[in-house]
Amino acid sequence: MTRLPRISDLAGDTEGWGFFLCTYKELRPIRSGELLLFTLQDATGQISAKLFDDIERFKDEFEAGEFVRVEARTTTFQGQQQLAVTHIRRVNPPQDRLQGFREEDCVLSAPRSIDEMWAELTTHVESVRDPHIRVLLNRVLADHQAQLREWPAAQQIHHAYRGGLLEHVVKMADVGRHLAGAYEANEDLVLAGVILHDIGKLQELTYEPGDATYSRDGNLVGHIGLGLVMVREMINGISGFPDDLRAHVEHLVMSHHGRREHGSPVEPKTIEAFILAAVDELDAKLNQVRRAVSEDPGADEFTVWHRRLGRVLFKGFPRP
Amino acid sequence: MTRLPRISDLAGDTEGWGFFLCTYKELRPIRSGELLLFTLQDATGQISAKLFDDIERFKDEFEAGEFVRVEARTTTFQGQQQLAVTHIRRVNPPQDRLQGFREEDCVLSAPRSIDEMWAELTTHVESVRDPHIRVLLNRVLADHQAQLREWPAAQQIHHAYRGGLLEHVVKMADVGRHLAGAYEANEDLVLAGVILHDIGKLQELTYEPGDATYSRDGNLVGHIGLGLVMVREMINGISGFPDDLRAHVEHLVMSHHGRREHGSPVEPKTIEAFILAAVDELDAKLNQVRRAVSEDPGADEFTVWHRRLGRVLFKGFPRP
Amino acid sequence: MTRLPRISDLAGDTEGWGFFLCTYKELRPIRSGELLLFTLQDATGQISAKLFDDIERFKDEFEAGEFVRVEARTTTFQGQQQLAVTHIRRVNPPQDRLQGFREEDCVLSAPRSIDEMWAELTTHVESVRDPHIRVLLNRVLADHQAQLREWPAAQQIHHAYRGGLLEHVVKMADVGRHLAGAYEANEDLVLAGVILHDIGKLQELTYEPGDATYSRDGNLVGHIGLGLVMVREMINGISGFPDDLRAHVEHLVMSHHGRREHGSPVEPKTIEAFILAAVDELDAKLNQVRRAVSEDPGADEFTVWHRRLGRVLFKGFPRP
Amino acid sequence: MTRLPRISDLAGDTEGWGFFLCTYKELRPIRSGELLLFTLQDATGQISAKLFDDIERFKDEFEAGEFVRVEARTTTFQGQQQLAVTHIRRVNPPQDRLQGFREEDCVLSAPRSIDEMWAELTTHVESVRDPHIRVLLNRVLADHQAQLREWPAAQQIHHAYRGGLLEHVVKMADVGRHLAGAYEANEDLVLAGVILHDIGKLQELTYEPGDATYSRDGNLVGHIGLGLVMVREMINGISGFPDDLRAHVEHLVMSHHGRREHGSPVEPKTIEAFILAAVDELDAKLNQVRRAVSEDPGADEFTVWHRRLGRVLFKGFPRP
Amino acid sequence: MTRLPRISDLAGDTEGWGFFLCTYKELRPIRSGELLLFTLQDATGQISAKLFDDIERFKDEFEAGEFVRVEARTTTFQGQQQLAVTHIRRVNPPQDRLQGFREEDCVLSAPRSIDEMWAELTTHVESVRDPHIRVLLNRVLADHQAQLREWPAAQQIHHAYRGGLLEHVVKMADVGRHLAGAYEANEDLVLAGVILHDIGKLQELTYEPGDATYSRDGNLVGHIGLGLVMVREMINGISGFPDDLRAHVEHLVMSHHGRREHGSPVEPKTIEAFILAAVDELDAKLNQVRRAVSEDPGADEFTVWHRRLGRVLFKGFPRP
Amino acid sequence: MTRLPRISDLAGDTEGWGFFLCTYKELRPIRSGELLLFTLQDATGQISAKLFDDIERFKDEFEAGEFVRVEARTTTFQGQQQLAVTHIRRVNPPQDRLQGFREEDCVLSAPRSIDEMWAELTTHVESVRDPHIRVLLNRVLADHQAQLREWPAAQQIHHAYRGGLLEHVVKMADVGRHLAGAYEANEDLVLAGVILHDIGKLQELTYEPGDATYSRDGNLVGHIGLGLVMVREMINGISGFPDDLRAHVEHLVMSHHGRREHGSPVEPKTIEAFILAAVDELDAKLNQVRRAVSEDPGADEFTVWHRRLGRVLFKGFPRP
Repeated sequence: MTRLPRISDLAGDTEGWGFFLCTYKELRPIRSGELLLFTLQDATGQISAKLFDDIERFKDEFEAGEFVRVEARTTTFQGQQQLAVTHIRRVNPPQDRLQGFREEDCVLSAPRSIDEMWAELTTHVESVRDPHIRVLLNRVLADHQAQLREWPAAQQIHHAYRGGLLEHVVKMADVGRHLAGAYEANEDLVLAGVILHDIGKLQELTYEPGDATYSRDGNLVGHIGLGLVMVREMINGISGFPDDLRAHVEHLVMSHHGRREHGSPVEPKTIEAFILAAVDELDAKLNQVRRAVSEDPGADEFTVWHRRLGRVLFKGFPRP
Repeated sequence: MTRLPRISDLAGDTEGWGFFLCTYKELRPIRSGELLLFTLQDATGQISAKLFDDIERFKDEFEAGEFVRVEARTTTFQGQQQLAVTHIRRVNPPQDRLQGFREEDCVLSAPRSIDEMWAELTTHVESVRDPHIRVLLNRVLADHQAQLREWPAAQQIHHAYRGGLLEHVVKMADVGRHLAGAYEANEDLVLAGVILHDIGKLQELTYEPGDATYSRDGNLVGHIGLGLVMVREMINGISGFPDDLRAHVEHLVMSHHGRREHGSPVEPKTIEAFILAAVDELDAKLNQVRRAVSEDPGADEFTVWHRRLGRVLFKGFPRP
Repeated sequence: MTRLPRISDLAGDTEGWGFFLCTYKELRPIRSGELLLFTLQDATGQISAKLFDDIERFKDEFEAGEFVRVEARTTTFQGQQQLAVTHIRRVNPPQDRLQGFREEDCVLSAPRSIDEMWAELTTHVESVRDPHIRVLLNRVLADHQAQLREWPAAQQIHHAYRGGLLEHVVKMADVGRHLAGAYEANEDLVLAGVILHDIGKLQELTYEPGDATYSRDGNLVGHIGLGLVMVREMINGISGFPDDLRAHVEHLVMSHHGRREHGSPVEPKTIEAFILAAVDELDAKLNQVRRAVSEDPGADEFTVWHRRLGRVLFKGFPRP
Repeated sequence: MTRLPRISDLAGDTEGWGFFLCTYKELRPIRSGELLLFTLQDATGQISAKLFDDIERFKDEFEAGEFVRVEARTTTFQGQQQLAVTHIRRVNPPQDRLQGFREEDCVLSAPRSIDEMWAELTTHVESVRDPHIRVLLNRVLADHQAQLREWPAAQQIHHAYRGGLLEHVVKMADVGRHLAGAYEANEDLVLAGVILHDIGKLQELTYEPGDATYSRDGNLVGHIGLGLVMVREMINGISGFPDDLRAHVEHLVMSHHGRREHGSPVEPKTIEAFILAAVDELDAKLNQVRRAVSEDPGADEFTVWHRRLGRVLFKGFPRP
Repeated sequence: MTRLPRISDLAGDTEGWGFFLCTYKELRPIRSGELLLFTLQDATGQISAKLFDDIERFKDEFEAGEFVRVEARTTTFQGQQQLAVTHIRRVNPPQDRLQGFREEDCVLSAPRSIDEMWAELTTHVESVRDPHIRVLLNRVLADHQAQLREWPAAQQIHHAYRGGLLEHVVKMADVGRHLAGAYEANEDLVLAGVILHDIGKLQELTYEPGDATYSRDGNLVGHIGLGLVMVREMINGISGFPDDLRAHVEHLVMSHHGRREHGSPVEPKTIEAFILAAVDELDAKLNQVRRAVSEDPGADEFTVWHRRLGRVLFKGFPRP
Repeated sequence: MTRLPRISDLAGDTEGWGFFLCTYKELRPIRSGELLLFTLQDATGQISAKLFDDIERFKDEFEAGEFVRVEARTTTFQGQQQLAVTHIRRVNPPQDRLQGFREEDCVLSAPRSIDEMWAELTTHVESVRDPHIRVLLNRVLADHQAQLREWPAAQQIHHAYRGGLLEHVVKMADVGRHLAGAYEANEDLVLAGVILHDIGKLQELTYEPGDATYSRDGNLVGHIGLGLVMVREMINGISGFPDDLRAHVEHLVMSHHGRREHGSPVEPKTIEAFILAAVDELDAKLNQVRRAVSEDPGADEFTVWHRRLGRVLFKGFPRP
């Protein structure tokens, strides 16, 4: 039996074994006994799986949240690819590492390497000319490095995978700085907004590999308020930080959703805030578009209906 | 010449002198020279005024923001009462106090006495049973007494006068605690929400007698965010304050506008938060309704069209 | 075999027998034959049930709308508790009463006793000082007592159970009168609004124990119009009822949804109407919140997503 | 001095005398004395007027609400035609009738003759085949003839002139019956809906020639509710009127605004109700369009911006 | 075995054979093997079908998009009628025609005969008096006859069947011309708008019997834009077509959805455009209403909830 | 008498002469005669002006739409700067050119040089790699050069001045291409969208120096539809233009307003279309923001309320 390819590369009629993270598990009673339904992921995608036989033997061999070793073949159910599993057990790290098991390969992740994106981010910060903003951003990167490297940007919707927040921030930094230049905005401020606008997500979400959930503070206070408090506390710790600069940085955090009905209690009132909100919205949308296009199973020029975007998407045009 | 009655008591054809606060002043050029347009207020209301003659003599006798002594008679312009002024000069406190001048009589104010409302508020706080909330609320009252007694609740719209915030809070405390009882909600938490929900307004607005304006932080961060930071800092200073209680109190601040399109980044998720948002909205609306009814000049059963509420209001029914 | 506890008290792995109302029944064909799906309720809640074996024997033993005796054990399907039924038959009242069967125990009901709530309501009416309103309200209670005691306040959404309308009205009377006092509104009028605002529901809905449906008039005219006609007819029968008072009472009925997009053809134009609309909306929402919190099966601090309210709800805080 | 043409025919530089209704009068104080501002109307339109000289002599010669005799010449102010008045006095009927004064010529009116429109309406009613509907409609016409002939359809917006309601109903009857035929709807019901849908306006508005205002019931209950009560009472007086027919007729009244946000508490649920709502909305809009086009003063192909419709309108195409 | 009745006439417990179009086919794996799910249609309606036995034998006997011969009996699943199929195979035209197979009987179609509707349409066009519009419309009918006779008016929602566009246009022509007469609009222009407003649908949709899908241009450009281009090209080919008439015709195409949020980049600015948009919306809605009423399976006076219209519909009243 | 500075440089109390374009002129009758009100513009801004004396002499010396020579001093009316004019006459080009009169100095214009922006645009087009797009864009620039250099981007709102469309396109080209790179979009397509999205404005607006008005086609068809027709015709003239590329380019035109309620009949369905709509909206908003900030007369940190944006704007932060 050969090793299964990455989930994003799974083809029509494949059989083999592989390591995955199990993110959902249900023992569903059916008339003639029981059925195991579960969801598997690796760095490149997610797939539904079913196990029909020997339920008694396998049902305690793994739980949701664990890494597993699986034997399966691909099948199709209602137009969606699935795995028909015949064997499954939790990973035994010492032994399975010899077969090539690595945690990070089994967790849905940003397509780019985290180290590479982190290097890009630090380069951005090094270019900051305003001394107070530079101190502030260096402190953010130093204090929150571990989380900033791993966190998703959201629980679902967009960049909802390991390193997603970093991917989101790095892309916004590139684009935001160009826009700042084009519109004679303060580039340092735009970069500060990019790096800090979602900083409250580090408290809004709790993240275990493959599983982001809302924290109590996330549900009750929300990432905009949590981010404001974090930024205020960091700036309080920097002596001589000008008060109008503080207010402007906080404005970027508070207004970054662009409109009140999107959850920003104040709306953009500066060039920098308008740029930040536009870049944030565009990056979130394009992440969904690209994902919908790349995951669409059909052979048509258009994807199936995308419920959140409320439309189909065109796949037909060759990219450069 | 007799003393003019309070603005709210001004009748059709009155002449006399009085002390007021001037809140607006404009020297308008007209074909045959110039005209002085200004606005006067006392504790009970506001009125437009005009001065046609001896402009040269009077135009430097006062500025907007100053208390003034005025000689005038009432007149009517486009259905609104006005003052036709013949003499005006800034108040000379030592001398004018002998004639009965008192600052607080000349500033638009809540109808109830501030001391009385403050006593009511402290009584509410004394009844709190949760020790942490009691410490928190006592600290709020101690730290912000001066402002909490004077501040308006808004720049325009509702409770936009001296003591307006206190009037708003005291009425909400009465109503909110009753609702907490009726719905088995936590009465202490509701009271905390009532007292803290608009605490950010102390930083959102700057208030000089008769003149509330948005501060830089008010425009850029907004009172919901400012209030959150203030609450977080006060709670950080209280040792042993339970974390779930902190999160709930902050939730009340963040969600008190009830809906995202009204500026709350998170929406009510607890009985207490639903009560607070409902009481806040109702008190703000009823303040506008009562004001519109009492200030309506006409003799009809209905007021003129109220632009903000989008309707006329019924004046016809005898109150109990 | 022991008796099953109340539905709201059903625990993980219970077996026993009990009396219920069956509110839904479906014979679903499956590949290997048929399956009986049905819904059971008692005073405290509702539960889905399935029967797999001996379909031929049981399928004519009961119909939707009948009281049944059931033998079953609890099970879980997709995270929801269910009953796996092994025996079912319609109740035989003479015989089953000996086992403790009582109709009212098997119909989903308000948590408080109907007699107690009714007494509270009559006490409210006795306190009315305006003679015309008192006559009117006494007539309402006399003419519609049977329905007012039993009716739900809605088909689904809120207070959708036996006695729900009474529960809604009694709570609103308590709260509404306090608000009337706080805002110097006419307490008698607010009480009239509370008792009459949903009176059209007696014609809008037809109610059989456990089953509220829209009547023809309910669908075509709606409870606001039906209520207006009922009120007009009752007032026409009271000689000397002042016309402005009639118009105000009718205004309360017409405007009680608060906004046109919520179905009120006229919007509140008096203090009393603003209070009524606010109290109605708050009571309806809090009924949903409390229900969602108490019925939520999970162990988390937050409920699952509440589709109608569009949010999760916080369960974490100890009530007083 | 010659007689002035009808208001709709007034040209650039005309002088003369005429009879009008004065609908507004204001004595505005200006620096050098006073100015009389007033509004005049005749059957064809409305015009602003000013009087600068001999204010003392003329100011008590007339009041708003009176018919007046005027000497004036046309002038232009901010692109709008006006009358510069030199003499004005109230009409002296016995004497002025000799000069051709007739009340109905001085009140803004529907363009078609009221007698002609009334004849058309009775012809429609005679064609009704359903005996109950025929009795009902005959009763409406008999009981309310005087008002139905005179009333405007609204205070402003559309058909806001003498005979406007009749014009609206007659046009809707023609169009509605054709649509009923086209869609195999019940023609009698559609006609009933057309005649009854705005019947509540007879109580919602009080109408004096040239002056429609909202009544107390109009403001507090609204024409949809008032119409429902009127219809119910009339049907109660017709023995044997089928109950489902009654419900359907009432549904037409309640749903005729088509959507809840337009003030209908229930939305159309029958073919007849959909037709009625569509015809009502279209007739109201086309009345505004035609009026805007015919009153537009400019020479361009397009009218000035129409605030209520939110657009300019095309005048350029020759009508058949 | 007898022949099955038309789908719209299928009764509770019928067995027989028939010809249909298969529009959907799925081989669904279940625990004990596989199940064939498919959808069948004839001229009068659509029905779900299942085949449980001899899957291996039947699964290659037909594909979606083919005409089939079926043996089945009616059954009920979750309140909906279905066909339980026992034999199925693709149609063999030469042989099956002898049994009465005709393509057009098996494709969901407008209820009226296409020839009859087409004759009606040409009669309308012959009545046009404006020579340029007559040339234009004759050209449309000549150039697009084949498509205009067959095309549906939409993929789903309304008139979504063979001949649906023609049915929509013919009904709108009747109604639109009457309205043009009633409102002194240009009848020729209204007819031009009726015939051309959806002409872009011929490119927006591709239509195979029983299967309408969006084309690439349909998704990317949309029928309003496509229609504009088609109209411009046709008019360019007619020498002497007046430019203001061209602009007005194009305006009818661009504005026929009535409002920007419904997809019209410009809103109606002429009487003719208002009429066209109203007639289009009403005809689309009434087609849905009539369909919902006629397809509703229940015995109640009201249909089940109509998701798109957001209401139930009244079936209770006898049509004339 | 010295020459007046540019309008944007006018200070408090200046007197002098200058050349301007008069864009509005009104002879307003006042009690004591007449007053001349008019509006003047130069390349840098717009200003209101009044003339009180010698009306008879000056009123025929100029008309709206003419270049004028003015003698005046600055004054302030209701907080806005104005010109009090003492002499005015139309420009006599041969003679006034000697004093430095140049048409382009007197027409409100984009801040950058048109030649410079045009050079930038042609450089963008030269970089296109796709041969068909390159041909298309070269043709656009060749065919419409004169208009593309002069046209404003809108009648009001944003870039509403000479060269405004070019300024808008050039800035969008810079930003759009960067975004295309960042998101691996097709850079050539994005540039095509940038250059063509508003091409319909060349027909939607008619532009005379200082005066943009909607054409008949602009009002009736709109720039999205007009642009589509123009693009289709140009592409039809390019042999071998691939059909999917044509559809994509047309999609960019049709969807560039981003949402249906903003007037796009189809919404973005490709990465390129999302980028184009985002860049268009951001550039239009930032043009308004920058203008509001630079034109705001006050000394506060914040501008006055911006009605269209619905907020004040922050001016307080030093730009880089």
